[in-house]
Amino acid sequence: MYRIGVDLGGTNIAVGLVNEEFQIVQKKSLPTGADRASEAIVADIATLCREVCEAQNISLSEVDGIGIATPGIANSATGVLVYSCNLPSFLHYPLADTLKEMLGSACDVHIENDANAAAWGEAVAGAAKGTSNSIMITLGTGVGGGIIADNKIYSGFNFAGAELGHIVIEVDGAPCGCGRRGCWEAYSSATALIRMTKEKIEECAKTGRKTIMADAPKISGRTAFDAMRAGDEAAKEVHDKYIRYLAAGLTNIINIFQPEVISIGGGISNEGQSLIDSLLPQVRAEQYGGDRVALTDIRIAKLKNDAGIIGAAMLGV
Amino acid sequence: MYRIGVDLGGTNIAVGLVNEEFQIVQKKSLPTGADRASEAIVADIATLCREVCEAQNISLSEVDGIGIATPGIANSATGVLVYSCNLPSFLHYPLADTLKEMLGSACDVHIENDANAAAWGEAVAGAAKGTSNSIMITLGTGVGGGIIADNKIYSGFNFAGAELGHIVIEVDGAPCGCGRRGCWEAYSSATALIRMTKEKIEECAKTGRKTIMADAPKISGRTAFDAMRAGDEAAKEVHDKYIRYLAAGLTNIINIFQPEVISIGGGISNEGQSLIDSLLPQVRAEQYGGDRVALTDIRIAKLKNDAGIIGAAMLGV
Repeated sequence: MYRIGVDLGGTNIAVGLVNEEFQIVQKKSLPTGADRASEAIVADIATLCREVCEAQNISLSEVDGIGIATPGIANSATGVLVYSCNLPSFLHYPLADTLKEMLGSACDVHIENDANAAAWGEAVAGAAKGTSNSIMITLGTGVGGGIIADNKIYSGFNFAGAELGHIVIEVDGAPCGCGRRGCWEAYSSATALIRMTKEKIEECAKTGRKTIMADAPKISGRTAFDAMRAGDEAAKEVHDKYIRYLAAGLTNIINIFQPEVISIGGGISNEGQSLIDSLLPQVRAEQYGGDRVALTDIRIAKLKNDAGIIGAAMLGV
Repeated sequence: MYRIGVDLGGTNIAVGLVNEEFQIVQKKSLPTGADRASEAIVADIATLCREVCEAQNISLSEVDGIGIATPGIANSATGVLVYSCNLPSFLHYPLADTLKEMLGSACDVHIENDANAAAWGEAVAGAAKGTSNSIMITLGTGVGGGIIADNKIYSGFNFAGAELGHIVIEVDGAPCGCGRRGCWEAYSSATALIRMTKEKIEECAKTGRKTIMADAPKISGRTAFDAMRAGDEAAKEVHDKYIRYLAAGLTNIINIFQPEVISIGGGISNEGQSLIDSLLPQVRAEQYGGDRVALTDIRIAKLKNDAGIIGAAMLGV
């Protein structure tokens, strides 16, 4: 049995053929060309679907299901992509039906928001495997979220929910790309960490305080972590501030959902277990119900960049 | 067909016989005597169950189901009350089985956290009737929450979730009873509104500014609302601050859940539609996805103090 997962991004389309062990056995990609007409983009998806089958020497009829992970608001019930700021030609577009028609495929075609698909991938085959209630948080350019409740993706009655990065944790705080101020994303994304790092470097420059962060050729989400490990005190302050906000947001997620597992993905998750070790004392001290209840496990996500493809492939299962 | 709903509170036990139209046709209550042994309290629940049936001239065998709404952490799968600070003798107590045995009843007995049961009541028979995804928020002494996802109560893998009042909206902000700082409850409960009202009265006293709020014989959650309606400027400032935080928290709830309906209960909800009219402009301006998606309806809860009994009666349906 094989399934196909499509990760339709604003930059690239990646298509993977996934086997019964949830492994990607073939993978092909093309640039999205997001300013093109939707039909041209779907035609490229169809081509990539055929190519991964050919590469594996199977026919498309041996594929049991196809899923597409898309940015924006995807109506998973109708297969219509409602809106995506990264894919402007897809407004209220019947994405699932169009791909199915182009492929002449008999199997079901599902669509899902990419963050939700990634959460589903982690739940089916990754860090939250074997659980019924899990949350995935992605700490990248933004803070993404996906909710798995009772073995199903939860996205609200209009398929626009699970915007967990857009929970305000500081009323009238730092500006967020969504238009609000004080969103969790404005404090816990890699972008926010880079901002905090730059602010600290400036502050050090003004006061004549030494920090090796100032010597970094380029400031990234790793700069403060690396400098802290090298013993830099200013970097430790940036780290502690970042962890404070990240722990506050994760504790919020626990108080809301009490999931069995929270899996953390995105660039910042490359810090690995030491990130979780820094977070846990604050989370445990603050979470509602204390230790009278079974505790949510916080884990680094497993599937990395493949979570979207694997999750998409497993939609409808 | 009749069902029985039990609202087991820290102060009173209220038991209602509920008919097919979700109306309470008989209601009896007794003081809880929360410091008594659990068996004595359950015996009183059993007595009240028999009494509501007798008053309606039906036998207990004509009751199709019994539900108990309890404070604290209720394991709805096993019927065990895990922990409730208001009912200390019920630690890991098999509440459903004990009541079933005492009644010699053949019907199912369910238990559920009281805020969740109230949300279920509003979903089945109140402000969110006819929807599959709704949230209830109770603005009282605290801020309570209940989540209905896909026609089921969602409370997490350990039954301790949906603590929506304990989402931090100001990191390191006002102290909350749960031990955290900056919880939504610390800004949007009636208790918080009373605190803000008192602070403003003190501020006015210090600066010699006039406010009719200072003349109130007792400060309540209504004081600022009433004084604002009478044209008091200081009261309007309290109101606007309170609405700012309440709107921020409700927008968070929409961004997380995108429910079809949020129903607002508790003492503050007695302000009625004007409360919602004050909230909506801020919520609509800030919610994620803007008007590209179907919008969550914010409504005043309908069942008032009966929500727990009606929701409990309808557990397992």
